[in-house]
Order: sequence, then structure tokens, then C-alpha cells
Amino acid sequence: MRNIATVLFGDFETLDVFGPVEVFGRFPEQFHPEFYSLHGGIVTSSHRVPIVTRPFSDLSAGPYVLFVPGGIGVREIIKDKELIDALTRLGERAEFVITVCTGSILFSKTGLLDGKQATSNKRVFAWTQKESPQVRWVKKARWVKDGNIYTSSGVSAGIDMAFGFVADLLGREAARQASAEVEYEWHENSEWDPFSELY
Amino acid sequence: MRNIATVLFGDFETLDVFGPVEVFGRFPEQFHPEFYSLHGGIVTSSHRVPIVTRPFSDLSAGPYVLFVPGGIGVREIIKDKELIDALTRLGERAEFVITVCTGSILFSKTGLLDGKQATSNKRVFAWTQKESPQVRWVKKARWVKDGNIYTSSGVSAGIDMAFGFVADLLGREAARQASAEVEYEWHENSEWDPFSELY
Repeated sequence: MRNIATVLFGDFETLDVFGPVEVFGRFPEQFHPEFYSLHGGIVTSSHRVPIVTRPFSDLSAGPYVLFVPGGIGVREIIKDKELIDALTRLGERAEFVITVCTGSILFSKTGLLDGKQATSNKRVFAWTQKESPQVRWVKKARWVKDGNIYTSSGVSAGIDMAFGFVADLLGREAARQASAEVEYEWHENSEWDPFSELY
Repeated sequence: MRNIATVLFGDFETLDVFGPVEVFGRFPEQFHPEFYSLHGGIVTSSHRVPIVTRPFSDLSAGPYVLFVPGGIGVREIIKDKELIDALTRLGERAEFVITVCTGSILFSKTGLLDGKQATSNKRVFAWTQKESPQVRWVKKARWVKDGNIYTSSGVSAGIDMAFGFVADLLGREAARQASAEVEYEWHENSEWDPFSELY
């Protein structure tokens, strides 16, 4: 059983979070989504979804997957030293790290992506490269795996990455079956990315 | 501006709700997602996502879209007469009704789907037909529109339906642009449904 330690912050992107949560939630024996924010309390997405969270300090010592979504709120919180320091400590202890959309920009501020390959939202890719040039950003990719860190492209790409992560840990057939159950056409190829050509 | 009055209940399906909420949330001038439950309070999805809700009685008199998701919790609440009665009153006053997955089974208990065409989750389609034989269930469909009621197939089909609803109200180009922004490959054809052949 792995805790999916989901990091929320004000104005996170709704589907960045709940696409992967749906995928992991299909495997209740393996994954256990939980919702954290720096100090706990109710955190609201940019689409006004109010989620009850626990403080980072509640995250227990067992193995966990650190899950960092993106959203318009990233532009503010990358300036928050207390948050970045806390995220760095969580990232160092994580068995795996997964990010969706501009979550990779947020996570890059920990330094734990330095020199690694990663991807992000395609509409703001120029900003991505400018914010953290020390990361080896890959433009054409639905998701990228480098070591124990998975990063995905914009919003709905997180669903494809989550199934890819499940495939790596539990086998491709498990991922395919779950994607059929939620009637989702999984893009199994992590290099599929028509959106990289739009912007 | 239309309120998207989202009906939550214990053990709702996470992505049934937050796929469409993401889509509607891309149009903050047109749609305003809000979260309701019969008596208000914190309601938790089957994947343990805790959402803060308002009671049905808070729903104001203006035009709204009644949004009914599905999930494992549907099996219990279709027996809850107080909930069904309240849902019936909300359905009668709604400008539009949209359902995802087994949300159509829940909504069918109001009688407001009687004689109408509708669809639902494909894995439990036999149960769907048995629960409400007075509905004209359509098996092969990503989503179905009958009058002011839109019903979709399982889980991720709600995203395609939501873009279809946006296309009907705001034009196809608006829907296409928003789907590209969230890097989602929208299935524009409501008759696309490979999952109807799996079960």
C-alpha cells in the first residue's frame, strides 16, 4: 500500500488532481490518495472546489508517492520559501514523485529536478524553460520518467501518466483494464503529444 | 452566468464530478460550479476525496444546470426517498440536467427521464435497464441529449459530454479551444463508444 500524498494549494487546477486520483483510486489495495497542504484546512481549486486537507506534518513515515499538481496558483507559491522548503523535504523522502502540468515548475524549485528530464504544460512551455533552465525540459512528450520522478504535460495528460505509472508498477494489463472500466481511451505511448505542436 | 449545481452524496465517483467541473471551469464568465448535498457538510468520494458542500436548500432561484454524477454510492441512495424527492424538485426547476455514469440511474428515480432517451455506464448496463425500464436506454453512445437532459456513459465520458454541452451553448470552436487548452483529445462525436462493445 502506497500513500499518494497529494499537495494542494490555493488555485490548483481541478483535473490535474482528480484525473490521477481517479486512476489510483481504482486500485484501493495498492494506492491510498490523501490530501495535504502546508498548514492543512480547506483549500480551493481555481474552479472553486473546496477540499479538506491535512497539514504536511501529518504525513507519516511510510513509503509514499508525492503528487504535485499545477494550476494558476503555481505562479504565486513558487515565491513561498516556507512551502518550497517543506516540499523539498517531502520530495527527498518520497519513493516516487509525480507531477501534472505546471506542477513540474513548482517541484523544480526544490532543486530535485536539476539535470533531469521533465515535461510540463505546453501553453506555458517558454515560461517553464525560463523559470528553471537547469532542468532538461522535453517539449514533445505526454509524460516523462527520469529515475523515480514522473512529470506530465497539461491537465488531462496526468490521466495518461497515472495509467503509465500503474503500468510500470502493476503491469500494463492492470492499467488497460482500469482504463476500460472508467471508459477512458488511454494514450499508452508517452511520446504521443499533438499539443506540443499547437503552441 | 449559469450555476452548475453539482449534487454530491457519499461514495460518488471522483472523475464523474471533476472532469466536467474542469470543463465548465474553463468558462468562468458562463458557468459557476457549486457543490451541494441533501443536508450540506463534508461529502467524501469513493476515493476518499472530502468536499465541502452546501445544503440543497441553499440553491438560489436563478437558472441552473443540475449536475448528477454517479458512483458506487448510487446503489444506496436510490433507496432514499427524501433525497429522490428533493432531487425531483431540483430537476423540475433546472434549465438543463446533465448526468455522468450511473448518475442517470439516480436521476431516473425522479421519473423525469421516463420515456426519454438516455445512456449510462456500460459495465452495469443490464442493471441500468432493470432499475428503470421506463427509460429508453441507448447502449452505444458517448452521450445522449433528449430535450434539456444530457446523459453520458461511464466516468471519463462526462468530459466529452461537457465539451458537447459547451459546444451546444457556446459553439463548437469554444469547446475545441478549451479542450486543446487542457490538452484533452475531445471525442466530438456523441456516437463514438468503443466501450459499449466490451461488456
